[in-house]
Amino acid sequence: MSENGKENGARKLCIIASKGSLDMAYPPLILANAARMSGIEVDLFFTFWGLDIITKDKMKDLKVATVGNPSMHPWFHIPTFVGGMPGMSAAASAMMRREIDKLDFPPVDEFVETIIDSGARVFGCKMSMDMMRLTQEDLVEGAEVLGAMEMLDYAEGAQVIFI
Amino acid sequence: MSENGKENGARKLCIIASKGSLDMAYPPLILANAARMSGIEVDLFFTFWGLDIITKDKMKDLKVATVGNPSMHPWFHIPTFVGGMPGMSAAASAMMRREIDKLDFPPVDEFVETIIDSGARVFGCKMSMDMMRLTQEDLVEGAEVLGAMEMLDYAEGAQVIFI
Amino acid sequence: MSENGKENGARKLCIIASKGSLDMAYPPLILANAARMSGIEVDLFFTFWGLDIITKDKMKDLKVATVGNPSMHPWFHIPTFVGGMPGMSAAASAMMRREIDKLDFPPVDEFVETIIDSGARVFGCKMSMDMMRLTQEDLVEGAEVLGAMEMLDYAEGAQVIFI
Repeated sequence: MSENGKENGARKLCIIASKGSLDMAYPPLILANAARMSGIEVDLFFTFWGLDIITKDKMKDLKVATVGNPSMHPWFHIPTFVGGMPGMSAAASAMMRREIDKLDFPPVDEFVETIIDSGARVFGCKMSMDMMRLTQEDLVEGAEVLGAMEMLDYAEGAQVIFI
Repeated sequence: MSENGKENGARKLCIIASKGSLDMAYPPLILANAARMSGIEVDLFFTFWGLDIITKDKMKDLKVATVGNPSMHPWFHIPTFVGGMPGMSAAASAMMRREIDKLDFPPVDEFVETIIDSGARVFGCKMSMDMMRLTQEDLVEGAEVLGAMEMLDYAEGAQVIFI
Repeated sequence: MSENGKENGARKLCIIASKGSLDMAYPPLILANAARMSGIEVDLFFTFWGLDIITKDKMKDLKVATVGNPSMHPWFHIPTFVGGMPGMSAAASAMMRREIDKLDFPPVDEFVETIIDSGARVFGCKMSMDMMRLTQEDLVEGAEVLGAMEMLDYAEGAQVIFI
């Protein structure tokens, strides 16, 4: 058994976050947070567009997609044609931020810090970072860089959740 | 071992459905149905846009996204520019409904009922429901409301599939 | 224990690929490749739009979605309104192909062949193929057709990753 794998039968989650939109940034963070509060070990691996969630100059300004999402409710119904207009994504993102704040969830950057402080390990996918020309300096403090094979090694014995 | 967890080594799936488009509503339902037919225990957890799938006044009218999906075939090829025109999503959704019907799969609302009748447990994510101002009354009969920590507790020992 | 399930405790991944865009085609292929290089057993199951990845006359020409993806960086920032213009998806796809090539990852069709040669099993989802009127002849050589219940049977004991 790899020492990176599951130890003594402790439960472990490996969450892979691949989306960078505001609405899809919250599910991995909420799951990671809930798991840590339940004493479950958590590794968070950010890949492709998900890297935005832990990239210092992006994480404060994630946006909701207003087109390509026919569920874009309940705050307002935006027909796809109008959803493509300049400014609509910003308006929807501001509304979603307000709703999230009302529920007492922190903004993305603070939420990521809380999760790191709670003991979850946070990784950026090396291959995606090379493609996007990012280095560890670009990531939030506490995040490390990891290749796909090492990630799989860490994920041994974990419940893997790809978001 | 939690009594919500895996009992006597029985196989269990925990399916988390986070998308509300017509095309992404079917994968969780088809998997849940196939699993129940194989005698596998199933918990379905609907979160974010996925809540539409079990919301009474939405579940009969889910729509295919015609923009933001470059694979939008094979029924017709819609260039993104045209896909954004009013009416295109409705047309694509109607075509997809016909195709699904030809394969003898029921419409979403009947499919959800069948799955509940087969013994799968169906839950709405409490946090998403609060954000969307939904209560258990808004959900299909048989669905319950569950927080993220309780969901993780139920998912112990399960294969977790996030869609 | 089913003979299709996990044998002698060998580690196994079941990757379900449901997206057909160029950016979401790579994560299942990169994970499958990394897993095979680590000696992990891999089943790849292509369903819904993911079928494009193993369909002979589609797999060479997958496209990036330029709308509905507010993260569409870092190569350029396309406002959603402009992203919907004819030609933008093709331009973004060409740029992504160049970046992927620079990282020494093969194009999708060659990558799929490499993965099959490495011993991963590759399946098309029967129900999706019926809906899209595809037969095994339309799939890349080495791919087989499989129903959802058989897929679940193969996935017993595996870490399931739905992309």
